[in-house]
Amino acid sequence: MSERMVVIGGDAAGMSAASQARRLKNAGELEIVVFERGHFTSYSACGIPYWVGGQVAERDDLIARTPEEHRAHGIDLRLRTEVLEIDVPGSRVCARDLASGDETWWHYDKLVLATGATPIRPPLPGIDAAGVHGVQTLDDGQALIDTLDTSRGRRAVVVGAGYIGVEMAEALINRGYEVTMINRGAEPMATLDPDMGVLIRKAMQGMDIRIVGDAEVTAIRTDGTGRVRAVATDEAEYPADVVVLGIGVRPATDLARAAGLPLGVHDGLLTDLAMRVLGHENIWAGGDCVEVLDLVSGSQRHIPLGTHANKHGQIIGSGVGGDYATFPGVVGTAVSKVCDLEVARTGLREKDAHRVGLQYVTVTIESTSRSGYFPGTAPMTVKMLAERRTGRLLGVQIVGREGAGKRIDIAAVALTARMTVEQMTALDLGYAPPFSPVWDPILVAARKAVTAVRREV
Amino acid sequence: MSERMVVIGGDAAGMSAASQARRLKNAGELEIVVFERGHFTSYSACGIPYWVGGQVAERDDLIARTPEEHRAHGIDLRLRTEVLEIDVPGSRVCARDLASGDETWWHYDKLVLATGATPIRPPLPGIDAAGVHGVQTLDDGQALIDTLDTSRGRRAVVVGAGYIGVEMAEALINRGYEVTMINRGAEPMATLDPDMGVLIRKAMQGMDIRIVGDAEVTAIRTDGTGRVRAVATDEAEYPADVVVLGIGVRPATDLARAAGLPLGVHDGLLTDLAMRVLGHENIWAGGDCVEVLDLVSGSQRHIPLGTHANKHGQIIGSGVGGDYATFPGVVGTAVSKVCDLEVARTGLREKDAHRVGLQYVTVTIESTSRSGYFPGTAPMTVKMLAERRTGRLLGVQIVGREGAGKRIDIAAVALTARMTVEQMTALDLGYAPPFSPVWDPILVAARKAVTAVRREV
Repeated sequence: MSERMVVIGGDAAGMSAASQARRLKNAGELEIVVFERGHFTSYSACGIPYWVGGQVAERDDLIARTPEEHRAHGIDLRLRTEVLEIDVPGSRVCARDLASGDETWWHYDKLVLATGATPIRPPLPGIDAAGVHGVQTLDDGQALIDTLDTSRGRRAVVVGAGYIGVEMAEALINRGYEVTMINRGAEPMATLDPDMGVLIRKAMQGMDIRIVGDAEVTAIRTDGTGRVRAVATDEAEYPADVVVLGIGVRPATDLARAAGLPLGVHDGLLTDLAMRVLGHENIWAGGDCVEVLDLVSGSQRHIPLGTHANKHGQIIGSGVGGDYATFPGVVGTAVSKVCDLEVARTGLREKDAHRVGLQYVTVTIESTSRSGYFPGTAPMTVKMLAERRTGRLLGVQIVGREGAGKRIDIAAVALTARMTVEQMTALDLGYAPPFSPVWDPILVAARKAVTAVRREV
Repeated sequence: MSERMVVIGGDAAGMSAASQARRLKNAGELEIVVFERGHFTSYSACGIPYWVGGQVAERDDLIARTPEEHRAHGIDLRLRTEVLEIDVPGSRVCARDLASGDETWWHYDKLVLATGATPIRPPLPGIDAAGVHGVQTLDDGQALIDTLDTSRGRRAVVVGAGYIGVEMAEALINRGYEVTMINRGAEPMATLDPDMGVLIRKAMQGMDIRIVGDAEVTAIRTDGTGRVRAVATDEAEYPADVVVLGIGVRPATDLARAAGLPLGVHDGLLTDLAMRVLGHENIWAGGDCVEVLDLVSGSQRHIPLGTHANKHGQIIGSGVGGDYATFPGVVGTAVSKVCDLEVARTGLREKDAHRVGLQYVTVTIESTSRSGYFPGTAPMTVKMLAERRTGRLLGVQIVGREGAGKRIDIAAVALTARMTVEQMTALDLGYAPPFSPVWDPILVAARKAVTAVRREV
């Protein structure tokens, strides 16, 4: 007898889960139904800033697989369909067709929650004014592009200075806008320590991005037609023809909470290693709606990132399909760029280490992406945290130019393997003058960290 | 009472050892004498192709530290001084001043052999003709540049298609030469498996480099003035205005052999983990004259590479200076480029695995350096070897364009940590559209390798 897999949410995690389950079970064995509230499936939300900025020409370039392609693989994909309720004891979900308003209960044998994350939209006066945009979905991206195409002014304000904020700053510069970035913290990119954030701020200021730090947005000011005209903070007002919100997201788990499923301190769903919701044999969850284990600190984190969502989907689909795979956790790797500035981090920041009771030493070094004499070599700064006494690597942060960012992967693998900085000094990394100095910058940092660990016994 | 450290060879390993020892012991505690046969110290031999090709403007750009700088740090550096003999029982070496011919015996308390490697120069008719060049030393590089500057013709033949050969091919193209590369093997870059070599050959042919494979050079033909005019193989003759030899090197260990020091199967010195010559408490060796432990296969290899030489020097200097450091071994990482082609490898090739009795599966995947929709994304091919049954990673080879080569470091760290390909599929690598597809190519290969391992139980 055929079982039914019901998936709530049709982006990275949900569609990866559906596709992987379909690879393992044919339509006679497993019926797969996916409910997606929006118009699109399987798209790269991470690519939206580059579409807005004009580096990616077409919206459809961001769509990895169309609804038709999924349907051709035997997945019953229902767009514009919102799940209103999960009845866990009854093993069923209630779905509403947004066009017709019809509501239907669907039985499930296996349920997958891939409801994603919701952009934080502070309840400010004017927040819903014309010209104020989030950039979470393709619909959001299209609305922003429409505003940019028709705006007569060229003043943009970006609220928030995390990854989305800085990527949108680049996009708006590429569209010919003057960009002001308003940030609650002192320095942009709070995913790095402030001493590295200073470097990012200075580099962005060098790109003529105006950065307002330590500022709280208090209102969006509108003109007589209801369009945005300025962003107000507690201290000043910044004229704006368009406003982009990049404040962050939170797990979209209202449905899960109402169904009594377990949530963590970040409001994300809690799962076991096979991505099954804790305490539920036949319910899985993955992507931006779950919390993940941070392998370095041992605590749970919420890290909305497409690369994790794809892995989760793969693992969930394997589990639903009767195969075996697990998601051991993350080390917190992220890489981003603003124009030619590359920023990367993995592991713990100082405050993360402090919070979980780890004592540490830090070192910061300057090196170059290639041999110092090689054309195109660019300076890069590497900060490294190592545990006091044991010397175990705890985290790395990089700010540099071309060739700097992806070096974070060296540290990401070393963290996964729980290497000490002394072990890292012997790593056999690729060397040739166009690619690296004879001591890779990561090795330079590791050597200095060894000395620091020995000094602070 | 002051001890004396004697170092034979003043390039990467020797000068790093001297400098590190000097950091730990002042001149009152340790006298440091370095004998160097040539005119230069501490230079980047790896940079010579880029100097010849014109990307690095000046010879002096390749010199990391001048003799004067070393002397200012209290190192008694003697250039143009050749060590003729090591008297191990007597703890002394005999050095000849090449200018005066004077020979002197020097007592040592600690001896460091950093004699480097010697380019292989087959005993062919005409091999010493004008216009035939090696590229091992700065003197070699200068002689080649002089030939290129004065040559009327523009036909170059490169003998050998390893790293030096392909880098010299690029250099000669940049100088406006027509390049023919004559190679003993079927495909260039035998440090990769032949199926990856095919990709390199095709890419190089696309750069208008003529590649002659499966060919044995039998003679260098000269004109009436003794200048090179062609390179002959057993099958044909290739006109040449200049010939560059890139056949490889062997450890320069004649001195060590005569002194009765232990050599391995590759004629390199054998050391312990602290880089002390086996059986000798007060003799160290490092750099291109030693064999190193391959951590993947467990066997000894000869890998002449500046990055290892620098590490060896550091470790030797620490040991001589009374500190503690070890060199655990290598995984065999190398990265190179020919124009915009990037080539990298780490771990074992198929034949290496076979030779040491490891059974394995291989997978080869095509992916891209950035998200497929991102401007500047370029195809890359990744080949991965995993051990049969255990799934332990054994090796990775990459052929691609910009952004491909340094990804080898991910595999290098994973090899060092003895990860399985299944563990690798969960690696938390840096993702953003300008840097990587949502599944990094290394992860794509690891996933496919997992399937292959499971299939071949």
